[in-house]
Amino acid sequence: MSFTYSYGRPALAVDCVVFGLDEEDLKVLLIRRGLEPFLGRWALPGGFVHLEETLDEAARRELSEEAGIEKVFLEQLYTFGDPGRDPRERVVSVAYYALVKLSDHKVRAATDAKEAAWFAVDDLPKLAFDHEAIVEKAIARLREKVRYRPLGFELLPKKFTLTQLQRMYEKILDVALDKRNFRKKVLSTGLLIELDEVEQDVAHRAARLHMFDEKAYRRLEKEGFLFEI
Amino acid sequence: MSFTYSYGRPALAVDCVVFGLDEEDLKVLLIRRGLEPFLGRWALPGGFVHLEETLDEAARRELSEEAGIEKVFLEQLYTFGDPGRDPRERVVSVAYYALVKLSDHKVRAATDAKEAAWFAVDDLPKLAFDHEAIVEKAIARLREKVRYRPLGFELLPKKFTLTQLQRMYEKILDVALDKRNFRKKVLSTGLLIELDEVEQDVAHRAARLHMFDEKAYRRLEKEGFLFEI
Repeated sequence: MSFTYSYGRPALAVDCVVFGLDEEDLKVLLIRRGLEPFLGRWALPGGFVHLEETLDEAARRELSEEAGIEKVFLEQLYTFGDPGRDPRERVVSVAYYALVKLSDHKVRAATDAKEAAWFAVDDLPKLAFDHEAIVEKAIARLREKVRYRPLGFELLPKKFTLTQLQRMYEKILDVALDKRNFRKKVLSTGLLIELDEVEQDVAHRAARLHMFDEKAYRRLEKEGFLFEI
Repeated sequence: MSFTYSYGRPALAVDCVVFGLDEEDLKVLLIRRGLEPFLGRWALPGGFVHLEETLDEAARRELSEEAGIEKVFLEQLYTFGDPGRDPRERVVSVAYYALVKLSDHKVRAATDAKEAAWFAVDDLPKLAFDHEAIVEKAIARLREKVRYRPLGFELLPKKFTLTQLQRMYEKILDVALDKRNFRKKVLSTGLLIELDEVEQDVAHRAARLHMFDEKAYRRLEKEGFLFEI
């Protein structure tokens, strides 16, 4: 079978923006580069696509190899392909974003002993390549998502307080929300189940715990709605 | 500068789903293939990315070369990269979608004399490669867009009737809408300017023409809203 394709070929990579949430911040997972170019600079986990794997498989493999992260929510974001984005030669990168529960994903030392760490999205170090633009695109996607779809199932612990949920919205949208309004709106969505349990081991008055009604959550995920802020 | 990238490289292509709207249907532009594989089968306009051009530039070049289409609304859709999607070898395709005013874009014979034609989205022929999946993804994106963003600026003529606007929503969403409800909702968005003009040369009673308030349109495009159907 002959093939008429005679152009030079860009290299093909995947890069992943992994979001996690803790009590203080929305965070992104970064890996310190052990190779040129940008040796020592922080970068998104990622790498070259193997010929026999799908793009999704390449993204999952890189997350596993570079940060020990497995079985997460992962979605394709956008493909970055400007000539010159890699100083070596033309590399086109299919970017993904992932959502993880931070408590489940203590970053382990990556197999090739590169350093990995979580950084607050509003306090990122200077990144390698065009990875700042990729992170920006991922945050924009997350903001879009949080307005029209339920979010939190993949970011919050199974049982959470309304304050934790409010903080998630505030961190993603980068705004301060009114507590009473927020509670009224979020309770009216029918997404939450109020549990007969309260927080444990807290210094302040223990708040009631909630969980997502998974059926309502999956339905609204499919149908969409407007969460007005 | 040495480069450690030693894997085989997929070929990189772009493919474009170009939507147009006429009185009857939402349509997609297809090109009849003049080469193997899938010789004679209909396919999306597209082709291989040149090393020195951006992905957006590649998509615009292919639209111009294959269908004489220039200066249209064009947005990246999704990257399709399953091994086996091209029978020749691995080809990864960055898909785009475009919106055009059909009246402005009579498809001209493409430079290499391939046949080009518009097909109704609900009556497409069998397509080459995984192009049916690409069209499906593009329709899903358009449906998402029409619910949360104003749409029509790039699809409708400059002056249009409310019936034309309703038909656009109906064709994209594949539902029948109640005329009175639709008008009430669409007029309440503040997106429309009622003109002091009516349709010309129609057999039925001439309907009033409207145009978009571009300022309101661009604002809602940025902010988003929920157009409940």
